[in-house]
Amino acid sequence: MENKKIYITARCPIRTTLELVGGKWKLLIMHQLYGQTLRLNKLKAAIPDISEKMLIQELKVLVQSGLVHRKSYGEVPPRVEYSLTGKGENVKPLIKEMVNFSRKYEEKSRVGG
Amino acid sequence: MENKKIYITARCPIRTTLELVGGKWKLLIMHQLYGQTLRLNKLKAAIPDISEKMLIQELKVLVQSGLVHRKSYGEVPPRVEYSLTGKGENVKPLIKEMVNFSRKYEEKSRVGG
Repeated sequence: MENKKIYITARCPIRTTLELVGGKWKLLIMHQLYGQTLRLNKLKAAIPDISEKMLIQELKVLVQSGLVHRKSYGEVPPRVEYSLTGKGENVKPLIKEMVNFSRKYEEKSRVGG
Repeated sequence: MENKKIYITARCPIRTTLELVGGKWKLLIMHQLYGQTLRLNKLKAAIPDISEKMLIQELKVLVQSGLVHRKSYGEVPPRVEYSLTGKGENVKPLIKEMVNFSRKYEEKSRVGG
């Protein structure tokens, strides 16, 4: 039994993380950016079912949160590249646990556990 | 540079986890149920800003996914208790990483990193 609980308030750390990277797309985008810099069209190609509008919107929020860096080269036609910031790179162990959770879930579902 | 990427398809493990525990409430509910069995009113009290309707709906989905166990005692007035299943308990390392991510984020934000 675990009695010490984090009380769920607006400032609880789980909520903070949900606000930063919650929703359907942010972690998928950050996963693609891990260890590499990508332009919008490459990101779009890696996540085929996201609309361009949604991708741009999610990137904007991630940039505002300081998790993604947007570099514009000021060229014509525009050349813009996205990469993870130091803060954004901290997403790696979280994504790893999401993958683990899914694998354990599917394994237990197969053996009927 | 990391070149080996999990291609983001409908079956990618990150998506599976997002489908199972994504959204605003499921992880908060599961966090409260970790290591303890709770009735609806206790869960509601622990997460003050969730509506009862939403709480019931989210619990229903979690039960359907096999992550939460619902035990009804068949009493009048009804007595129903919720707890995590074995599969649901696997959420612990994921929640731990969510807490870590939030802490690292806030720490770097304080030092301006």
